[in-house]
Amino acid sequence: MSRMTDVPKRLLLGRALRSDRLSETLLPKRVALPVFASDPLSSVAYAPGEVLLVLSVAGVSAYHFSPWIAVAVVVLMFTVVASYRQNVRAYPSGGGDYEVATTNLGRRAGLTVASALLVDYVLTVAVSISSGVENLGSAVPFIVEHKTLVAVVMIVLLTLMNLRGVRESGKLFAIPTYCFVAGVFALIVWGVVRGAVLGEEMRAPTADYDIASEHTGGLSGLALSFLLLRAFSSGCAALTGVEAISNGVPAFRKPKSKNAATTLAMMGLIAVTMFCGVIALALSTGVKMAEDPAKDLLINGQPAGHDYTQNPVISQVAAAVFGDGSIPFIFLAAATALVLFLAANTAYNGFPLLGSILAQDRYLPRQLHTRGDRLAFSNGIVLLAGAAAILVVVYEADSTRLIQLYIVGVFVSFTLSQTGMVRHWNRHLRTERDQAKRRHMHRSRAINTFGAFFTGLVLIVVLITKFSHGAWVSLVGMALFYAVMTAIRRHYDLVAEELAADDTDEKTVRPSRVHSIVLVSKIHKPTLRALAYARLMRSDSLEAVTISVDADETVQLRKQWEERGIGVPLKILDSPYREVTRPVIEYVKRLRRENPRDVVSVYIPEYVVGRWYEQLLHNQSALRLKGRLLYTPGVMVTSVPWQLESSEAARKRAKRRAEWNAPGSVRRGPAIRPGAKSAAGMSSGKDGEGSGQRER
Amino acid sequence: MSRMTDVPKRLLLGRALRSDRLSETLLPKRVALPVFASDPLSSVAYAPGEVLLVLSVAGVSAYHFSPWIAVAVVVLMFTVVASYRQNVRAYPSGGGDYEVATTNLGRRAGLTVASALLVDYVLTVAVSISSGVENLGSAVPFIVEHKTLVAVVMIVLLTLMNLRGVRESGKLFAIPTYCFVAGVFALIVWGVVRGAVLGEEMRAPTADYDIASEHTGGLSGLALSFLLLRAFSSGCAALTGVEAISNGVPAFRKPKSKNAATTLAMMGLIAVTMFCGVIALALSTGVKMAEDPAKDLLINGQPAGHDYTQNPVISQVAAAVFGDGSIPFIFLAAATALVLFLAANTAYNGFPLLGSILAQDRYLPRQLHTRGDRLAFSNGIVLLAGAAAILVVVYEADSTRLIQLYIVGVFVSFTLSQTGMVRHWNRHLRTERDQAKRRHMHRSRAINTFGAFFTGLVLIVVLITKFSHGAWVSLVGMALFYAVMTAIRRHYDLVAEELAADDTDEKTVRPSRVHSIVLVSKIHKPTLRALAYARLMRSDSLEAVTISVDADETVQLRKQWEERGIGVPLKILDSPYREVTRPVIEYVKRLRRENPRDVVSVYIPEYVVGRWYEQLLHNQSALRLKGRLLYTPGVMVTSVPWQLESSEAARKRAKRRAEWNAPGSVRRGPAIRPGAKSAAGMSSGKDGEGSGQRER
Repeated sequence: MSRMTDVPKRLLLGRALRSDRLSETLLPKRVALPVFASDPLSSVAYAPGEVLLVLSVAGVSAYHFSPWIAVAVVVLMFTVVASYRQNVRAYPSGGGDYEVATTNLGRRAGLTVASALLVDYVLTVAVSISSGVENLGSAVPFIVEHKTLVAVVMIVLLTLMNLRGVRESGKLFAIPTYCFVAGVFALIVWGVVRGAVLGEEMRAPTADYDIASEHTGGLSGLALSFLLLRAFSSGCAALTGVEAISNGVPAFRKPKSKNAATTLAMMGLIAVTMFCGVIALALSTGVKMAEDPAKDLLINGQPAGHDYTQNPVISQVAAAVFGDGSIPFIFLAAATALVLFLAANTAYNGFPLLGSILAQDRYLPRQLHTRGDRLAFSNGIVLLAGAAAILVVVYEADSTRLIQLYIVGVFVSFTLSQTGMVRHWNRHLRTERDQAKRRHMHRSRAINTFGAFFTGLVLIVVLITKFSHGAWVSLVGMALFYAVMTAIRRHYDLVAEELAADDTDEKTVRPSRVHSIVLVSKIHKPTLRALAYARLMRSDSLEAVTISVDADETVQLRKQWEERGIGVPLKILDSPYREVTRPVIEYVKRLRRENPRDVVSVYIPEYVVGRWYEQLLHNQSALRLKGRLLYTPGVMVTSVPWQLESSEAARKRAKRRAEWNAPGSVRRGPAIRPGAKSAAGMSSGKDGEGSGQRER
Repeated sequence: MSRMTDVPKRLLLGRALRSDRLSETLLPKRVALPVFASDPLSSVAYAPGEVLLVLSVAGVSAYHFSPWIAVAVVVLMFTVVASYRQNVRAYPSGGGDYEVATTNLGRRAGLTVASALLVDYVLTVAVSISSGVENLGSAVPFIVEHKTLVAVVMIVLLTLMNLRGVRESGKLFAIPTYCFVAGVFALIVWGVVRGAVLGEEMRAPTADYDIASEHTGGLSGLALSFLLLRAFSSGCAALTGVEAISNGVPAFRKPKSKNAATTLAMMGLIAVTMFCGVIALALSTGVKMAEDPAKDLLINGQPAGHDYTQNPVISQVAAAVFGDGSIPFIFLAAATALVLFLAANTAYNGFPLLGSILAQDRYLPRQLHTRGDRLAFSNGIVLLAGAAAILVVVYEADSTRLIQLYIVGVFVSFTLSQTGMVRHWNRHLRTERDQAKRRHMHRSRAINTFGAFFTGLVLIVVLITKFSHGAWVSLVGMALFYAVMTAIRRHYDLVAEELAADDTDEKTVRPSRVHSIVLVSKIHKPTLRALAYARLMRSDSLEAVTISVDADETVQLRKQWEERGIGVPLKILDSPYREVTRPVIEYVKRLRRENPRDVVSVYIPEYVVGRWYEQLLHNQSALRLKGRLLYTPGVMVTSVPWQLESSEAARKRAKRRAEWNAPGSVRRGPAIRPGAKSAAGMSSGKDGEGSGQRER
């Protein structure tokens, strides 16, 4: 059919393919929330504890600062949420921070965000898994005793799950996330009821302990404020993953942007409520957290020692409110662990997607971009898991130490994305004339400006307060990713330049005639097929070529050749040293020398076998020969396959592989209408999306 | 040119290629001896010790049996040498035991010999290296302390050397071998002079020690004779590698057979002289060897204990004759070690060669057969080294324990080869009429019959006396090789059957028309070249196909396509999910469904890059697509390469790889005239040869 008729057909086809599953794919808010919020919500499991940990350095007395820090975190949370509500409206395509930064601040900024996000994914896995294990451990001591091992095992499990291509399902996410939220709220409510209404006294397991501190006398103003800033940066762990929704807009039901914005707000609200609730309960139940419990946590005046494991705040509070080992306590611990593992899983969904977008922009190997490329996705996933596992092992699955690395990346992308948004509004304000719209834009810009300023400030604070505590590690990681991606992009650009078709090409490149060669080892079906196919091609000249590796076999062959009366001349290349490759290469080169404007077309009969060990027994020399021929100019190499019976199995296997589901489909939402600047091209951020990628 | 003119040309060419290095390749006797005899001669370094070891079980008194055992070994040696002189005459092509057994006793026997030889190679490496280390250790104690480690390191070194394709050189072999022989003879002569002439008393380091034995009272007749048989079997270690020359005939200067036979005789003579000399000196210098020195060797009545290392007889004798640590002592120790390492190296030369012959007979993957197939050779070498290393580690580089495994394989091939020779003569006697020849044949047959009988007897003795001591291990190894090779052969036979061209094929296989497809991602030089080439092929229909992965890019592409006015219709396949493979496969399948008798020819533009990591960045989806297409019937896949500048490097690399020297070239001698039943095909045995393989 003609090219003209393709577009409509394609649109139709495309639609047809998509429409049938639209309903099932688009997420209602109640499902979208758990899908995108498992990461930010789960951070409630560790953020509060981090705050107390840091404060404890100035002694228990410093705990009374925690509400203020909570407030600061809340304000920050609202700022970030408000800012991202602007992103959501401005980039309904689901533009992630990478897109926002790239389009508004240029390639470098975009790449920085991308590096930050990649590091962020790794840490999401490391931190969430570690914290999950710690929470599980509060109910099952055995687990804590083998923390690192369990954490690594969990990573391996998640990896295998995602390698097998398990599809992310909204419902699968909804249940544990809602259980977790419900559990925490029940905890808070029941805590308030018991404490305020029934006036019962609730005491955390660590209530009677004390904390050793060099600064019992209280800290000097400067040192104190530094400490508070550090505590605050730790608290900022609660914000990780907030941006997720801004990448998922196309996955929402219509009106997409509005729904996304609402969900974002809900998410923020729930998160801060839980965060504050937990901190409040922690204070009222007298939870004690020490940075180094082994020596700083005093039990009846004695240091706790190394065999003491410090349970997460949330589980200590649960122990106080519900009673240690009670059903609701266990339930909450399980839900917390589960939601944390889900949070880790989001990284497995996001990483390959961001990868595919970076590949689209040629910062990563192209094949990451094409779909159903299991290999590429797998590599991404294994890379992610490997890095996370290394971190977990190095930091002994200690969430506290891992969080020091975590927050930097998050705020790098926050800041750049918000700054980008400011630019975005400025640009639009230049052209926009509608007063209402302008007013709206001004408001949005104001919000984003404040967001950029605030997150930027936090970033600086984090860098100052956390650098020596490990933030430098993630900076190194970012630099690494940045360097590699720039190198890859440079390579692609160079190649593109080298390959660019100038106008003369078609003339210079076009050769005059084709000389075809069919490689023959013996006369069997594959050879005959290759000969038949070659004949069909009506090239200017056709000959069969055999390499005389064994004198007798060659004599044999020539005899058969004449008997069968095959109408193609058989040329025999002498190979006294039993080489196959060189004689052919040399013969081809000679042909080229004789008529330089000719093209030599080499037909290689190949068997297609089923099993890898069969592969070892066949085609090896053919493969090697091909490899060599590809380096010889003016040659094309044609494989004429002959499918052996055993190949059936392999065909099926290959098919299965091609139909493999890449992780992270749901959150991407359906592909967007073709013609628009492909969301695939531009969408990105922690969870990529709109990439028009979906399983059938 | 026509087929007819090829044969003479090929002969000429072949000759031309060979003649230029004939001189440098053919070995004069004085060089052939060290090349082929390093293995059998070196066994003098451990064989005598083994005899004493076993005898010591019956106490020192039993040592006086050793001369008789030496005599037995000598007789056996002469028998074997005499027998192989017949082989050499009967199979000037350098027929190894494998050929002799296969042609005269059939496939099974041949395969058994082959398995035996393969095991034999592994053990040659293990034993020679271990013994080499022990001899070196007698001069440098440090080495003995880290025996296993040093041995493994040596194996690794040899392996790397052979992987790099170092060429075996006659001279390189000559020097250390002659040093060793000279050293041993000097030892004997000087020993005799000092002892008999000057009447000095020479005492070995262990002269004053005694040996504990449960049988001090002497053994019962039966037990004793069993012990003597065991001692004899151990002594037979001196015969390992004798057959080597019989494979190397074509490497000799003319008259090949005669020279080979002479060399064989010389070798036997030297070997037995050294063997007996060493044993005699060992007795007269009072060397004491115990099977378990730690507990059975008594120093002033006390067991030697575990930190005692028992030095090889040859070095103890040297210590007695030359004086411990004297220059000649060190010299001999070094020469011994060196010649032993050379002996190990012969296995590295023989293994891949036997492999290539077995491959020719389709018992091993075909590619082992083709020359310059570095990959295949490397695999063989690594396999050999790996197996040897495992043995060395398992047996702690203890040559004594390893030798228990060694001798079985050797005598399996001796026996079968000799039996084969008997058959050979019988066959010829049936036809031969010339009386002189017949007499000669009768003599030869008599010799071989005796050889077969004697070696067979020894084989039984070895099996009985050594089975529990480890011989079973090598039997298991042989069974393993046998099974694998049979399986491979079966596979090849099945495939051959499936592929066999019946007369109808050419009709059924021949399709009607070709529909060509050029895969286009963007318009650049590779695409244009692919288009140009495809056009040349004048197939019945030609279209360019692109997969619309990104809507914009596609629009772009179509625009350019029209601008350039490329005369080929551009078909756009919709791929809303960014797959590349599936749409193409499905499209091809559709074409096939529509006209089942058509062939679809798919042209894939490929870049050829230089470095492996560049490869990662390109062609991945092309490769995968090719893989899938090969499973689709009625399709041929054409790669149209575009060589990037960086590919130059890789081309050179590939060339180098193709010019790599496979080990074991010298001993193979030059290729034999084509037309003859290819010696390549049939020659074999410990060092394979005449395979018509040689470096340029």
